[in-house]
Amino acid sequence: MNFASDNAGPMHPSVLDAIVKANTGYEMPYGNDTIMPRVRDRVRATFEAPEAAVYLVATGTAANALALSTYTNGWDAIFAHRVSHVEEDECGAPEFYANGARLSLVDGAGAKMDPDSLRHAIANTGNKDVHCVQRGPVTLTQATEVGTLYSLKEIAQITAIAKKYGLKTHLDGARFANACAALGCSAAEMTWKSGIDMVSFGGTKNGCAGVEAVIFFDPEKAWEFELRRKRGAHLFSKHRFLSAQMEAYLQDDLWLELGAKANANCARLVKGLETVAGAEIPDAPEANMVFARLPRAAHRRAMGAGAKYYLYPSDASLDGPDDEMIRCRMVCDWNKSGAEIDQLISLLRG
Amino acid sequence: MNFASDNAGPMHPSVLDAIVKANTGYEMPYGNDTIMPRVRDRVRATFEAPEAAVYLVATGTAANALALSTYTNGWDAIFAHRVSHVEEDECGAPEFYANGARLSLVDGAGAKMDPDSLRHAIANTGNKDVHCVQRGPVTLTQATEVGTLYSLKEIAQITAIAKKYGLKTHLDGARFANACAALGCSAAEMTWKSGIDMVSFGGTKNGCAGVEAVIFFDPEKAWEFELRRKRGAHLFSKHRFLSAQMEAYLQDDLWLELGAKANANCARLVKGLETVAGAEIPDAPEANMVFARLPRAAHRRAMGAGAKYYLYPSDASLDGPDDEMIRCRMVCDWNKSGAEIDQLISLLRG
Amino acid sequence: MNFASDNAGPMHPSVLDAIVKANTGYEMPYGNDTIMPRVRDRVRATFEAPEAAVYLVATGTAANALALSTYTNGWDAIFAHRVSHVEEDECGAPEFYANGARLSLVDGAGAKMDPDSLRHAIANTGNKDVHCVQRGPVTLTQATEVGTLYSLKEIAQITAIAKKYGLKTHLDGARFANACAALGCSAAEMTWKSGIDMVSFGGTKNGCAGVEAVIFFDPEKAWEFELRRKRGAHLFSKHRFLSAQMEAYLQDDLWLELGAKANANCARLVKGLETVAGAEIPDAPEANMVFARLPRAAHRRAMGAGAKYYLYPSDASLDGPDDEMIRCRMVCDWNKSGAEIDQLISLLRG
Amino acid sequence: MNFASDNAGPMHPSVLDAIVKANTGYEMPYGNDTIMPRVRDRVRATFEAPEAAVYLVATGTAANALALSTYTNGWDAIFAHRVSHVEEDECGAPEFYANGARLSLVDGAGAKMDPDSLRHAIANTGNKDVHCVQRGPVTLTQATEVGTLYSLKEIAQITAIAKKYGLKTHLDGARFANACAALGCSAAEMTWKSGIDMVSFGGTKNGCAGVEAVIFFDPEKAWEFELRRKRGAHLFSKHRFLSAQMEAYLQDDLWLELGAKANANCARLVKGLETVAGAEIPDAPEANMVFARLPRAAHRRAMGAGAKYYLYPSDASLDGPDDEMIRCRMVCDWNKSGAEIDQLISLLRG
Repeated sequence: MNFASDNAGPMHPSVLDAIVKANTGYEMPYGNDTIMPRVRDRVRATFEAPEAAVYLVATGTAANALALSTYTNGWDAIFAHRVSHVEEDECGAPEFYANGARLSLVDGAGAKMDPDSLRHAIANTGNKDVHCVQRGPVTLTQATEVGTLYSLKEIAQITAIAKKYGLKTHLDGARFANACAALGCSAAEMTWKSGIDMVSFGGTKNGCAGVEAVIFFDPEKAWEFELRRKRGAHLFSKHRFLSAQMEAYLQDDLWLELGAKANANCARLVKGLETVAGAEIPDAPEANMVFARLPRAAHRRAMGAGAKYYLYPSDASLDGPDDEMIRCRMVCDWNKSGAEIDQLISLLRG
Repeated sequence: MNFASDNAGPMHPSVLDAIVKANTGYEMPYGNDTIMPRVRDRVRATFEAPEAAVYLVATGTAANALALSTYTNGWDAIFAHRVSHVEEDECGAPEFYANGARLSLVDGAGAKMDPDSLRHAIANTGNKDVHCVQRGPVTLTQATEVGTLYSLKEIAQITAIAKKYGLKTHLDGARFANACAALGCSAAEMTWKSGIDMVSFGGTKNGCAGVEAVIFFDPEKAWEFELRRKRGAHLFSKHRFLSAQMEAYLQDDLWLELGAKANANCARLVKGLETVAGAEIPDAPEANMVFARLPRAAHRRAMGAGAKYYLYPSDASLDGPDDEMIRCRMVCDWNKSGAEIDQLISLLRG
Repeated sequence: MNFASDNAGPMHPSVLDAIVKANTGYEMPYGNDTIMPRVRDRVRATFEAPEAAVYLVATGTAANALALSTYTNGWDAIFAHRVSHVEEDECGAPEFYANGARLSLVDGAGAKMDPDSLRHAIANTGNKDVHCVQRGPVTLTQATEVGTLYSLKEIAQITAIAKKYGLKTHLDGARFANACAALGCSAAEMTWKSGIDMVSFGGTKNGCAGVEAVIFFDPEKAWEFELRRKRGAHLFSKHRFLSAQMEAYLQDDLWLELGAKANANCARLVKGLETVAGAEIPDAPEANMVFARLPRAAHRRAMGAGAKYYLYPSDASLDGPDDEMIRCRMVCDWNKSGAEIDQLISLLRG
Repeated sequence: MNFASDNAGPMHPSVLDAIVKANTGYEMPYGNDTIMPRVRDRVRATFEAPEAAVYLVATGTAANALALSTYTNGWDAIFAHRVSHVEEDECGAPEFYANGARLSLVDGAGAKMDPDSLRHAIANTGNKDVHCVQRGPVTLTQATEVGTLYSLKEIAQITAIAKKYGLKTHLDGARFANACAALGCSAAEMTWKSGIDMVSFGGTKNGCAGVEAVIFFDPEKAWEFELRRKRGAHLFSKHRFLSAQMEAYLQDDLWLELGAKANANCARLVKGLETVAGAEIPDAPEANMVFARLPRAAHRRAMGAGAKYYLYPSDASLDGPDDEMIRCRMVCDWNKSGAEIDQLISLLRG
């Protein structure tokens, strides 16, 4: 009963199979394996972007930091939401890779950038001649860190603001599949057709062992990216094992299928949570993650039986009045069984 | 017939099996998986170092750059051989991770540091007060980039010089197993018993998909290393797949067995090369790599039949006089069959 | 009539004289001049800190960035007010010098850190294990960027919060003298006696040409600072001209006298502004800087006659309705004459 | 009798006068002073480069590091002579400013790059695809660190090699004036007419207190340089005092006159040294610096009487056999009197 994160689950059998199959004989290293050209083609087809530059790395943080750094000078600000992975969970990797660039924080409900807040942040950056930090790229997260979604229109609104200032846009798609499945749109619609310039296309949280594609719709800086990836020590010699994962992940739109499954699992979980006495679910979850407030006794029962998920604050105690409400986060990946979800609900209900 | 590099081969079946087995259910992410404590114990046992700090990363460049940076200030010099991976093949990753530190190059035959050259390099660094770059760690590669070995005595000689100046020592062990097998010594003897403070213990080139252990015999900077690893985007969420590889690699000293096999394969290759008319093998190979000079016609036959290995210069043409000698490098991993080696020899002999 | 900034004025005659006198014969370079030991002694005496490490640089940004970087890892956050020089006016120098560290912004009225806001910022940093940026030093500005002052008690309150978390504290004293004169306290009281660990002691804005002292009350990292200063290209060969300025500046507490004069000039200016019809001065100025709202017509008259100061927004037009209020900033240095101030007032009054 | 360095002497009276004159009233800060446009024009006229971007900083290390960083990526190598200021005396400032770029060392007699050595260094960089450090700018020093000179033809030869590879060229002109005076050529001839793209034009060692001009003949990266200067904390608020120095320095070619004087002083010194019994002067000095080997007794007499200059090794003892030869370096600036030189010679001769 691990609902702690979608990075706690296993690989999808097809992805594992691909690794097994790739483990045959010799392959040239460092991205020159025979699988990678097919991966490149498939990513391009999936994104309807025949010219895109496509690279693989093994962690989402590497994808984000390397992609952003390619379009960020050391004296630039990267515009990111206050509640975003680059700000909260990467130990300063964006600043490290971008030579000391700054994150300029944007507000907005549901971890989604408010257009006015973004406009304000951009207007107040780079407006004092040489004295201040200059304007760099805008990065948004889809699905967000709290499981909400930008609509296509909202993405377009954000990117339009960036474009007005001539800024590049990046989409942190660690949960790209969940978002795409929930919106029912195409990968192209959620990215370049909505004004996105570069994407971290996540596989790790959605059925892979550790692979993310970095996609630049304009390949002008492809070579620079390759140098940055190598210099950051993120170019794999046995690259075929990254390629194999990604190939399986894209095959027959497995990525989308798994994203949809994770969302469905979460919906089932939410439905169950609504039946827990006293439960409060402030925001209707849109992807594969739910935040809820539940009585302490419910948490005590579930966690006592081995359920894993996060409480807020993180040091919240299970000792105390039964009725006191404690906030929690639960995440579903594609691999959750209905039985496991039902078991959790059953425990929470008592 | 791929003799290009030991990073071109597959995983050992045991390593693959471990990945398959690890793909069950849920594991806490970021190094908190249930396999990692066993890996830590096993590394400590293997190195007879019960206090050692042990971490996993996925590339050799990450292992080297992160380990070195932990003991290098931006204004320090890292002493490395002119022919070393950190100097030649990492696109400046050590400088990037160590905030602009400098590589100070040491000479010596066979890609091994000459003690006098090292002494000279150290003495000429940090000797001009605040004006010059200061003295940082010494890194040596075992087996070296050209397949030679430091004897235990030679390692001790190098580390003694470093210690005299109070400098830390690092061993780049991308081919640790090959060296250890060839020397017939223990992992402890080749490292801390010879004065080494930190090790990049390679798995990738020797039967793994992508895993290297960073080992600090003194754990004082363990927490700093963890921050550096995360910030460098090298902390895997699905870390269990790194742990699994390393566990299998250490089980029953598989690492050592594979290192010995690769060396034996290379010995067989060398024996065969000696029968190629005109072949010159200047240095007796000590590990799993051989440099030879062969007539162009031999290369033409082998490469024409699909054999892969490197020529020097890298743009050497196969068109030209048959008898002209062209230098080449051939590397064996554990997975070479006798038949494959014999086939190559047969082609070269014509 | 230049009221744009206190960095627009001349050197005090005594400081210029010191430069002239220092221009005799030969002096050893790079801080080994014969004046510097006297400067060191005088700074130590002024701050009642006989063990302090004392260094000179030529710009306030260098003083701040170098001092902070000495106690900041690349993965740390520096806690600074949202309205501070390090955040707004140094083009990311702190991040550059501190290897990509982050500024964590603290709120509070009058550009002064609110203790709760600081507590909150610290508590929300470094609280997610290895995943997040860690806690670094706290820097506060005295006098602040908007001319307000922390009382001694307020400084102590801020530093107590920092100490509780084991964090170092830095005081950006570009306008140290103005603050000290206004508070009527000693240099020691405003710094280490209130819990400050390191100071940028400004001379440039208060009668010098370009010199700032960096003071560490605990000299443990003195050598590291020297390396950072040199590596940052801020160690002057003809250092005597920095030493000479600082010696004159400290002689007979000239620094304090000039700070007091600047404050008095500003008080006179404020008194005059209060007589301008329609003028609004929301906050009583505490040092040498005033923010006021004045009718456009007043600005038009003053600026038309050559007066220089800043309007907000910076592109505010002088064309438009006479009565519309436009915000402005006026700064006085020690060198303003009463006549000049009165002339400005006279123009504003019309 | 200070012959230790040309950075140990005073300002020329005209330069000091300019500072005194500049100390009048108010000037807009940060390079917006009224003197700077005249300086820009004069530099452009002096270098016959009407489009050049011209900036002032206060130290030679800042000039070099900032100029080079503007054309160097973090993954690039800067080609510099093994005996150069950027390599030996800047504590890694080039690497710091260029985000961890590497210095690739070139050999050659007399601290001058040997064309073959440069060609070799360039050819062996950037030749291993993404794995190795890439080719960055070439920097040469004129006059060199050992007082020798590149002829115009030699400069052109070096820059032609750089151009062949599409690399930018930088001239470290800390002793630009000495070189220009000795060669009897124009500033343009020694720079862009010989293929140089950017120059650190030194004032500090030749009669100024602390000012260097950075000149880009192609201004395409002017704005980036301004950001780098500010971010490096090298933009002076009271910039007028840098402008004033440089204006006086350029007035009536004072720079050239002082360079010639320093050279003449050195020639007189050399002539005298040749009369010291046992003296050996291996290379005929070409600018304002001489390396000689003199008997210990001569050093003992001179240094005992207070003469200052450097011995090699730097810890050479004055105690020991009278006849033993000890190497030394003596530097003359423009300000040396004939009497002072003669006194030194007299002491050395005994």
